[in-house]
Parts: sequence; structure tokens; C-alpha cells
Amino acid sequence: MSASTYGSLFTFTTWGESHGPAIGCVVDGVPPQVVLSESDIQQFLDRRKPGQNRFTTQRQEEDKVKILSGVFEGRTTGTPVSLLIENTDARSKDYSEIKDKYRPGHADFTYDAKYGFRDYRGGGRSSARETASRVAAGGVARKVLQSRLGDGIAIRAGVVQVGPHKINRDNWDWKAAAENQFFTPDAAIIPVWEEFLDKTRKAGSSAGAVVEVVASGFPAGLGAPLADKLDADLAKAMMGINAVKGVEIGAGFASVEMGGEVNSDQIRIEDGKPKFLSNNAGGILGGISTGQDIVVRIAFKPTSSILTPMLTINNQMEETEIVTKGRHDPCVGLRGAPVAEAMMALVLCDHLLRHIAQTAK
Amino acid sequence: MSASTYGSLFTFTTWGESHGPAIGCVVDGVPPQVVLSESDIQQFLDRRKPGQNRFTTQRQEEDKVKILSGVFEGRTTGTPVSLLIENTDARSKDYSEIKDKYRPGHADFTYDAKYGFRDYRGGGRSSARETASRVAAGGVARKVLQSRLGDGIAIRAGVVQVGPHKINRDNWDWKAAAENQFFTPDAAIIPVWEEFLDKTRKAGSSAGAVVEVVASGFPAGLGAPLADKLDADLAKAMMGINAVKGVEIGAGFASVEMGGEVNSDQIRIEDGKPKFLSNNAGGILGGISTGQDIVVRIAFKPTSSILTPMLTINNQMEETEIVTKGRHDPCVGLRGAPVAEAMMALVLCDHLLRHIAQTAK
Amino acid sequence: MSASTYGSLFTFTTWGESHGPAIGCVVDGVPPQVVLSESDIQQFLDRRKPGQNRFTTQRQEEDKVKILSGVFEGRTTGTPVSLLIENTDARSKDYSEIKDKYRPGHADFTYDAKYGFRDYRGGGRSSARETASRVAAGGVARKVLQSRLGDGIAIRAGVVQVGPHKINRDNWDWKAAAENQFFTPDAAIIPVWEEFLDKTRKAGSSAGAVVEVVASGFPAGLGAPLADKLDADLAKAMMGINAVKGVEIGAGFASVEMGGEVNSDQIRIEDGKPKFLSNNAGGILGGISTGQDIVVRIAFKPTSSILTPMLTINNQMEETEIVTKGRHDPCVGLRGAPVAEAMMALVLCDHLLRHIAQTAK
Amino acid sequence: MSASTYGSLFTFTTWGESHGPAIGCVVDGVPPQVVLSESDIQQFLDRRKPGQNRFTTQRQEEDKVKILSGVFEGRTTGTPVSLLIENTDARSKDYSEIKDKYRPGHADFTYDAKYGFRDYRGGGRSSARETASRVAAGGVARKVLQSRLGDGIAIRAGVVQVGPHKINRDNWDWKAAAENQFFTPDAAIIPVWEEFLDKTRKAGSSAGAVVEVVASGFPAGLGAPLADKLDADLAKAMMGINAVKGVEIGAGFASVEMGGEVNSDQIRIEDGKPKFLSNNAGGILGGISTGQDIVVRIAFKPTSSILTPMLTINNQMEETEIVTKGRHDPCVGLRGAPVAEAMMALVLCDHLLRHIAQTAK
Repeated sequence: MSASTYGSLFTFTTWGESHGPAIGCVVDGVPPQVVLSESDIQQFLDRRKPGQNRFTTQRQEEDKVKILSGVFEGRTTGTPVSLLIENTDARSKDYSEIKDKYRPGHADFTYDAKYGFRDYRGGGRSSARETASRVAAGGVARKVLQSRLGDGIAIRAGVVQVGPHKINRDNWDWKAAAENQFFTPDAAIIPVWEEFLDKTRKAGSSAGAVVEVVASGFPAGLGAPLADKLDADLAKAMMGINAVKGVEIGAGFASVEMGGEVNSDQIRIEDGKPKFLSNNAGGILGGISTGQDIVVRIAFKPTSSILTPMLTINNQMEETEIVTKGRHDPCVGLRGAPVAEAMMALVLCDHLLRHIAQTAK
Repeated sequence: MSASTYGSLFTFTTWGESHGPAIGCVVDGVPPQVVLSESDIQQFLDRRKPGQNRFTTQRQEEDKVKILSGVFEGRTTGTPVSLLIENTDARSKDYSEIKDKYRPGHADFTYDAKYGFRDYRGGGRSSARETASRVAAGGVARKVLQSRLGDGIAIRAGVVQVGPHKINRDNWDWKAAAENQFFTPDAAIIPVWEEFLDKTRKAGSSAGAVVEVVASGFPAGLGAPLADKLDADLAKAMMGINAVKGVEIGAGFASVEMGGEVNSDQIRIEDGKPKFLSNNAGGILGGISTGQDIVVRIAFKPTSSILTPMLTINNQMEETEIVTKGRHDPCVGLRGAPVAEAMMALVLCDHLLRHIAQTAK
Repeated sequence: MSASTYGSLFTFTTWGESHGPAIGCVVDGVPPQVVLSESDIQQFLDRRKPGQNRFTTQRQEEDKVKILSGVFEGRTTGTPVSLLIENTDARSKDYSEIKDKYRPGHADFTYDAKYGFRDYRGGGRSSARETASRVAAGGVARKVLQSRLGDGIAIRAGVVQVGPHKINRDNWDWKAAAENQFFTPDAAIIPVWEEFLDKTRKAGSSAGAVVEVVASGFPAGLGAPLADKLDADLAKAMMGINAVKGVEIGAGFASVEMGGEVNSDQIRIEDGKPKFLSNNAGGILGGISTGQDIVVRIAFKPTSSILTPMLTINNQMEETEIVTKGRHDPCVGLRGAPVAEAMMALVLCDHLLRHIAQTAK
Repeated sequence: MSASTYGSLFTFTTWGESHGPAIGCVVDGVPPQVVLSESDIQQFLDRRKPGQNRFTTQRQEEDKVKILSGVFEGRTTGTPVSLLIENTDARSKDYSEIKDKYRPGHADFTYDAKYGFRDYRGGGRSSARETASRVAAGGVARKVLQSRLGDGIAIRAGVVQVGPHKINRDNWDWKAAAENQFFTPDAAIIPVWEEFLDKTRKAGSSAGAVVEVVASGFPAGLGAPLADKLDADLAKAMMGINAVKGVEIGAGFASVEMGGEVNSDQIRIEDGKPKFLSNNAGGILGGISTGQDIVVRIAFKPTSSILTPMLTINNQMEETEIVTKGRHDPCVGLRGAPVAEAMMALVLCDHLLRHIAQTAK
């Protein structure tokens, strides 16, 4: 398996650095005859795009996606879909100071340790810019999922915590999450977060966040034992997002303190179909979907690029200090919502096709 | 990629059901000339073996591993190592009641939904018994890691929480974790857990647990961007363990409430080498190891097999109740420690070999 | 991808050495609900079994297959099918002379070059005995293919040349190939081959063979561009059989001397369906099946174990001579027919499931 | 494994259609610190470029490769190398007639059978134009091989037969093959081929060819048993080239008529190292390289696009005729040489890195 390829049947391979000419990805295993246009993908890139509110990076990127292959007369041909996004606002001057110094919390040190050198411009390959490719690939996955499962499905993510401030889950409103710039289902918390983030930024600090991703309308039966467990693949996909340090399914870590009789979701029949009385399992049992909502929560660490001086070393193994100037989000988790949605769509699409392969007749 | 195969270069493929004649696995990509005997593997199976204290299942399994291939005159030959463990205590009578009913919290419902039927004896393929194969494979991985990295490495897991009761981290002692039956580094908490688990079992309930796995002595540079991120692969490996619902690396979910200047681990030079002043990253930055301890924590949900009657349905879509009798652990997380260690060893071995492939000259 | 695993969705992983306790394989990605018993598999092992005529090795192996997992109440469960065949006639004494010397034409030299030592007993992992595992896996593949495509399919192989003696294709009779011990569709050639092989053996020599494998009744559409081309995967599967040195599809090498207007198969309509007027393509165009017979021919080199003394070296890099005693087939290609059938079945099964995944709705 | 990805550790994924905006590939698993520029790759594209002599297509393509990622300051970074080649001479008008009709010998019929429709412009994805991506990827592989094995290695291909006309092997001269437009090591045959091809084209026909690829200077030990056999992977790589219908290693099909004492390559010691007295094995035994030249021969069928009218059907299942006008090579095999070299380089690079992974210490 290629180091830059996710998935087994429905795959995507991303490439590109923050300050190279372009980034992109190849989406393969796409079923034929799926209606697909650049605008189908663009809408998701637009959601992720930087510079939309004052708490995200001020880098100006159009993030216009081009489809270079795999689509003919508006439909996928079954061959690889190559997507390309040009880098238009790559100001190399901003990054000259980090050429030799390792920014704490960043991948500078580990890239040098592994590869012996690195493309230091804007974080190179480790930049969050790479996630634009994933969001684009996720747009393709969504169209494939719709072509197989219809319009009743939804994959949505919401920010549920910023720093110490959690939303009130009673206010949950997916419409709000789709509209506000914080991707949060509880619009009432926005003033609290704004005040907190302003203070954080002024202090030269940054903040973490928790994002919850929910896939609704998916059938029971997706996933398989051992290496193909749906929850395991979701954990990999989510932990692989830049700055993510934790993943939980359903009740997650909270289930540790529950008794088995509370945690295990009991089942009744409603309208002739199974109805679970709770969803502590997060829609997955034994690695296979139950047909309930698939619920994943992920923890983003605070942005590592901050104005507070930090102790560090350089690549000559000398002690030094660093202040990371530049156009950085005080809370990278905010823009994690569209990325998390994309990863959910990509994993589900791969599993759906595998499921069909094994069980269709 | 096969649905039952983990890894890309150093792989293992497990097979087998709880009540079939045997379980086992094939470990492939094993370097040649590694000294390996059945006892090298057996010691880890013995740690995981059921029936060792009164809080784990009373199933009596010898769990004797046989090496069927890939080893000649005490050394690996570079060809696949096939491991087999016979099932000796498979009492089918215990499981007749669950043939048609779906146990809440178990994979019964999802297996039927996916496959149309299931081997209902003891949970079949979804039984935690399958983890014995992983522990055996992990034994092979450890020998390979030692052959490349020497004896300075350690992969150890400890139970750090049972139900609501967390250990005192000031008491941390790996020697204790290796010796007591709770795999806990804080022996002082054992009486508290014993009392809690006795009460839990009497109440017909069960308890969750948190296990922390730490890999020490590993070099910087393991892992790679995107699909080969070390933390992402660890998340997959850990979330794929039966009953696990959450995974975090380093500070994990706690990092959400930290400021960037606290969370980012600062670096100094000590004895000419980089020394991080903290380890909130859990030894991984940008998906690549830093050379610090690699730290993962995983949440086990409470055992789903409990004596409390639960509402459920059967495979005729009729409402019913179920009480899960049998020889069950009140806290499956307790035996999760050796399994988590094995998964850590397997992931690190795969990544080490990939790293060598890309960077050796 | 594991070094011992074939296939991408429907996979098999073989393990085992000639003189270890057993050989076997794990077949994964098997759809559920396929009727499968040991006798379904055994019939193919019996065809391949040594000792059936005087031109195959006199090693006495029962080659009894055991299903260790993945089948419940006579049907596959969708989980890995583990197959085991014990080695019962492993006489190590026969092989002591080859411990240090490299038999020309064998893998002795290359295994030592790669791994630094080898299991020299009976060729160890490089023994043709390993192909029994593939034949067993092929038995599973056939059942899966039948479950999807019905009884109208056939996968048959025939020996069409031994040494310089080719069959008369006008005599082609698949029934004969199924019954005679030479697996040849032209029974009339058997006396010629017998005389030739007797003479060959007496001369301390050995002979090569050509086997033709034909899959009939398969739909158009299997395979995909580039890395998933059906002909490419068949080439890999066939070239991977011990002693195979050449593979051709349809007209193969003979097409080089044809004009395009002869080689390209013209198409008419018959009974409302496409009918090709010839099959130089061997049923594959652009890597995708046409619906015609899929035709592959493979060249087996002469057995390398011969009684003629050969110049060679030992593992001390000293010049020496060797005579390979033991129970060897004078023409290994004879027993290649059941192995080639199995590989065809395995490749087609993988491609069929991939095709379903990408195109089923 | 993605359908458009070759390799396991060192991989390449191609994308693109004949008449889309561009074609390209992503090369992944590239070791860091390898010196790589566009001109390193361009030289191989220039060799393959159409329009260089009067027997290859007159399509005018610059085939200028751009490196979009993975290279920084002239060296590879260890992250994916994305290569892009624009399609500049895509005249769609030439192809309108084939929109509904299936050209015999082409993939038109099978693509429609599989995908329900196809990009008919210039063969779309099935066009030989796709091989430019492979040649580009091969250029990267060569640089990696050199970085590990030095300048003593060579991967060269020569056309050894066109139609019925075989070269005189006594004239073999690699320098000639590098210089003449027929890529043949026997310049003396060129007038014969020219006359033959002129006649062939005038007759509205086309011709096949045999290409021999030789890798020299590679160490013993590349490859591994079963699914990783070097010869098996080479067979797949070569059979996957457009129009290839046969592959043989070393003596190949000719070995069938040899006795074992002739076919098995005897070994002596020369200068303290093993020296094989012949190379019927083509440098591979048991799927592992011997250190001799690795020799593969491949059969190209005659070009399917010919001016002779052919019987065919259209996608309405109606009988019709077709004449394929356009800018076609009368012998596609001629340009197969650089493609075959590239595939050899790609396979060897993947195997070398795998070998290092398993055996480096």
C-alpha cells in the first residue's frame, strides 16, 4: 500500500506541498456513470477555504479544483479521477526563519530526523494545506455514496468544544452548523468562543477543539472483522488529520465509567425494524455498522504556531528560541469540521463498495 | 488489502472462531535470521490467558502456540510464520440461547445484518478469543524489533482506570504492572478495584477500563505523512481491539483545553541530543516518531455480557429479553493490556521495516 | 501487500515448507453463504496429488485438507477460511546432500543469497509442494464463482506439449483431459509422451511442457485498466507457479507474425449477442474480458532435479558437482495443469468481486 | 490496492485519458535525498515520443513533464512525486466515427461492456498515450536505483523481431539500440524492417514485434517466494503494457524443448564469485534474482488500428464495418521498448526497497 494512499477499493492518493505549484489527489476505484462536476467538489472546498473569518489563517487561496481525468460528458468513466488545486498565495518570505529551527509542536524536527532535510516553506508536506486534497476527494466520495444510497444520507460535522467551552447539546441544530463560520450546531455559544479566541490570540496563545462527525442514513452491515473494522478505519482516517490527538466512537471514553447495562444499547422493534434505545455504540458493533447514526468525536490540539517565544533547537543541534509569525489560525480545529466530514465520506465509500463486493449477488 | 490482514510490509493475517477447532495467524514479511521459538511467543500468550484471576473468564484454555512454518533450526527463514492455537475448552452448550437472540452491545446483530447468518457459538469470529492470535503475532514482532533495535526497547501496557477509579500516576511502577494480575503500574489501587469489581459483578453489571501503552527506546523517524502516519496506524490498531471505543495519543483529549504554549513540547539539548521538556505529543509529530516515549491510551467499554436482563430482539424481528450467562470477564479491559502491547509491537515493526526500506542505503 | 498474499479483495495467503509439519493457506474476502465442504476442495487436491502415475514424484502424500475456520453449518461465514494440509511423507534423509550444495536450476542459490540460509529439506518453501495450498484455495474460489455465475462456467487446463511433442488440436476433448493422468485433451498423444518420458528418464534428463488453461462462460467486463488488467494479473499468477518461464494470452507470441487484419477478432451479432469470429485476443481486450473463452498458455521448464551430474558450487563458494537423487517428476509440467486451473479460478474470483464492487447498484 | 497503482512500497499511480487536458502519475515511496530534475525524466519521454520516424504515429506531442511535488532544491523529499504531462495535440475530430462502433482488437467493446459507456476520444484511458506516464515514473525509478546501486546498472530494451523478421543476435550492440529509431541492437536489420513495414502499411495492414528487456548489474536476492516473485511481478508489469500478449523469462517457451541438463544453468567460481555458465533462467530462480542479467521478452500484437475494413458491431448491437483512420503506428511494438524499460525499472525499484526492508540491519 502506498504511503500516500487511503482506502482499499475506493482509494485516494494525495500529493503536494504548501508552497509548491499545486496540490492534488487521484481518486481511484470510482464507479462509472456517477454524475460529477467541478462544482460538486468545489462547494466543499469553499467551506474549508481559509480566510473566511478572523479566526482562520488570512492566507488567500482560491482553492479552485480542476478535474483532469476520469470524467466524460459529466459522468465518471470508472477510471481514475485526478484533481488539481493550484497554490496561488504561496509567499515564501514568511517562512525563511523556520528553515533551520524546529517549531515546537510541528513536524519540522521529525521530517528532518526521517528524511535528512525538508521543504520548510509553509510546513511543506506537513502543512494543513494538504487537507484541501482530502476535502476534494471527499466530494467525489459523497457523489458515489449518493449514487448508491440515495439522498437520504447525510455526513455532517460540528465543532462541539473550543478550549474549555463546550456547546449545550440541547441546542443542537445541524442547520446552524452548515451556516455559521464556526461549524457549530449551537449558535448560542459563538459569542463565548469569539471572546475566548480574541483573548487567546492577544495572549499569543492558541486553542484546541473537539469536532463531532455524524453519518446518518447508512445501512447496517458496513465494515468487517479485524483489519476492516469500520471503527478502526475511521480511527485511522481521523487520527491522520493534522493536529488530531484523540478519536472516540459513540460514548467513547465516557463508556469506561458506565455499567454494562447502561452502555449496551437495548433493542426494540419499531415499524417492523430494529430500533436501538440509545447509541452508546456510535452506530458500530464488532466493527460493523448497526444502521444507527455513526458518531465519531475527535480532539484537535491547539495550533502550534503561536506568538509566544518557545524554547527549541536548530538543525545544528544548538539551543535557540522561536516565535512563529505568519498567517495562522488560533484554533486549527475550527477548520477541521469539513476535513473530518470528508474523511468520514471517504471511509464509508470504501466500505460500502467492499460490502457490495462481498455480499451482492 | 485482505480484510483480515494488518500491516503493509510486516503483516499478520488472523483466522479462526471461538469454538472452531483452532485459531491462528500467518505473520509475513518477517526478516530472516531472527531467533524465534515457541516459548518466545508463549510467554505473551500466558500473560493474556484467561482464568488467571477471579475477574477474568473462567474458560480454561491452554493457549499453546505451535509454529508450523517459517522457522528452521531456531531462526526465521524469511518466509511466512504460521502460528496455530488449538481451542480446547469450547463448550458449545453454554451458547445455545444466543443462537437467535441478539445480545445488546455484541456483534450478533451486525454479523447477521451483514452476512445473513453467523457462527453463534461463543461469539464466533467476534469473540475476544481472536485476540490471542494478535498476541502471538505480537510476540514475533517483538523479536524482530529486538533484532533491529537491540534490548533497549520496551513495549509495556498498564491498566490506569477501572470504572471511575483512576490510578495515582505518582505511584507508576512498570515492574508492578508486569507482576500483578491487573496489569496496573499502581499496585496500591488493586484493593479499590477488587472491591469495585466484586460489587459490580454482584449487581449483574460490568465495568470499563483505560489502558495506557508505552513504547520506549524507539528512534525518531518512524511513520510518514498521510496514509502512513504512525499515530493513524496506531489508532486503527487499537480501535480494532474488541470493546475499544476511544484512542488518544499523548495528551489526547486533554490537549483541547491547553494553550499552544503549554501543549507544544519545547526542546533543549542534553548530552548532545534533543531533549523534549514534556511529551504532550505522545512521541509523535506530523505522524512521525520524535524519539520520545510513544504513548497511547485506549478506552474499553464495559463487558456486554452481563447477568442483568436486557431488552432485545431476535432474528425473526421479534421483541424479547436476554440474560447472558457464561464465563465472562466483568471487565474485559483488564485483559486488554497484553493485546494493546501486541498491537503496538506489530505497528512499530511494520513501520520500522518501511522506514528502513525508504531510508537505508 | 504481504509477500505471500495474492489478490486484492478475494485473497489467499499461503504458508509452509516441504518438510515442516504442515502447509496451508488463509482464504479471505470469501462471500458469506457459499456452500463449502472439505470434499469440495479435496477433489482438486486429489487431481494434483503426487504418485498417481509413474512420471510424477513417488512421494506418498494423502494431501487431506482440513477447514479450520470460516465455515459454519456447511456454509461460509464471510470470515477467513483457514485450510491446513499435513505433511505426512517428509523423509528428511533424502535431502542431506543438498544442504550445502546449490542444485542448478533450483532456488537453493537465490534463497541463500537473499536470506543467508535456507530450509534445505526438500526445497523448503521453494518446493512445488507449496502449490497444494494454491490448489486448495482454488477450490474455494471455484465455489464462490459458481455461487455468483452458476454452473455454466468451466475452468479447465490441458497439457498440450511435452518436450518437443505437441498435441493435435483437432483431437481436443476436455473429457479426456479430465480423465487421463497426463491432463491432456488429446489422448492419442499419450503413447508418444510415455515413450519420450521413459527415454528421457533413462538418460538422466527431464522434459518441459506447455499447459493451456481455458475459462469458459465468464461475462464481459472483468478486469480494469492499468494495474488491474485481467491479463496482467493472470500473467503474474501463472508466472508465479514453480518452473514456469513463459505466459501468453490468446495467440500470444504467434500474433507477432500476423497482420492486424488477421489478428484483430472481427465481431458479428448472433442471437442478438456479440459473436467474435476468432479469439486471438484470448478473451481479453484492454485488460478486460470480452465474454469469450479466456485462454492462457504457460511454459514449464524441464525438471531441475536430474540424475545427470551437474557442475555447481557450495555455500563455501567452492566448485563441486551434484546429482539430484530423490523422488522427482521427470516432467513437472504434467502436474502443472491443476495448479494453473486453480490460479485462473483465484484471479477470476478476485476480479469478479472487484467488478461487482465497482458496478453493482 | 488501487486499480491504477503498481507496486507495493515504491508505487506509481497513473491517471489520464488520451484527449483530456493532461495525463500524469504520482510516484510514492520515493526515498529522500535522491537528486531528481525534470530533465532526468524528460530524456526517457523523448525516447518514447511519437512522431520520430515515419513508422510511428504522427501525433505531435511535446510530452513535456512537470514535477509538481516531492522535490525540493533538486532532491526528492521522501513525499509523493506528482508528474504531469499536458496533452497538446488532442484533435478530437479524428475520432468521431468510433464513437458508436467497436474497433476490432481495441478495448472499445470491453470498456462499454464494463462501464456502460466510454471516453471514445482517441481510445480514452485505453490509449497507448497512457504509457507516457509509466515512462515518466520509470525515470524516477532509475534515479532511485542508481542512488542505491551506483552507475554500474543498466536497464535496456531492444526490438528483436518485427513481423516475421528476427534480428541476428550475433550483431547485438546496445549502443545501436540506443541510437537508431527502431530501438534495435542489430542495425543491419533496419532496411529489412523498413521495406516490410512500408509494404505492410500500403497493404492496410500492421505488424507485431518482440522486445527484449535486459537489466544488468543487479544483485542476487531481489524478489521473494509466492506473491512477490520477481518474475511474476515482471510478467504482470509487461503483460499490462498495451498490446502485449506474451511474456517470457530467459529461455522462456524454448525451455520446453530442452532437457534439464541443458536448461539448468551450471555454476562455477570466477574471481571468487559465482559464475553461471549459461542464463536460461533469465537471471531468476525461485522468483529471486541470481545476480545475472535479468532477461524478459515480450510479444506485441500488430496494431489494431488499420486501414483494412473490418467487420464489427456498434453499441446498438447492430452489425457494421469500420476502417480506422488516424495517425497510427503500423507497429506499436516499436515504441514498446522505452515502455518496457520503464516497467523493468519500476518493478526492480519496488523489489530492491522491499529487499532492503527485509534484510538490512
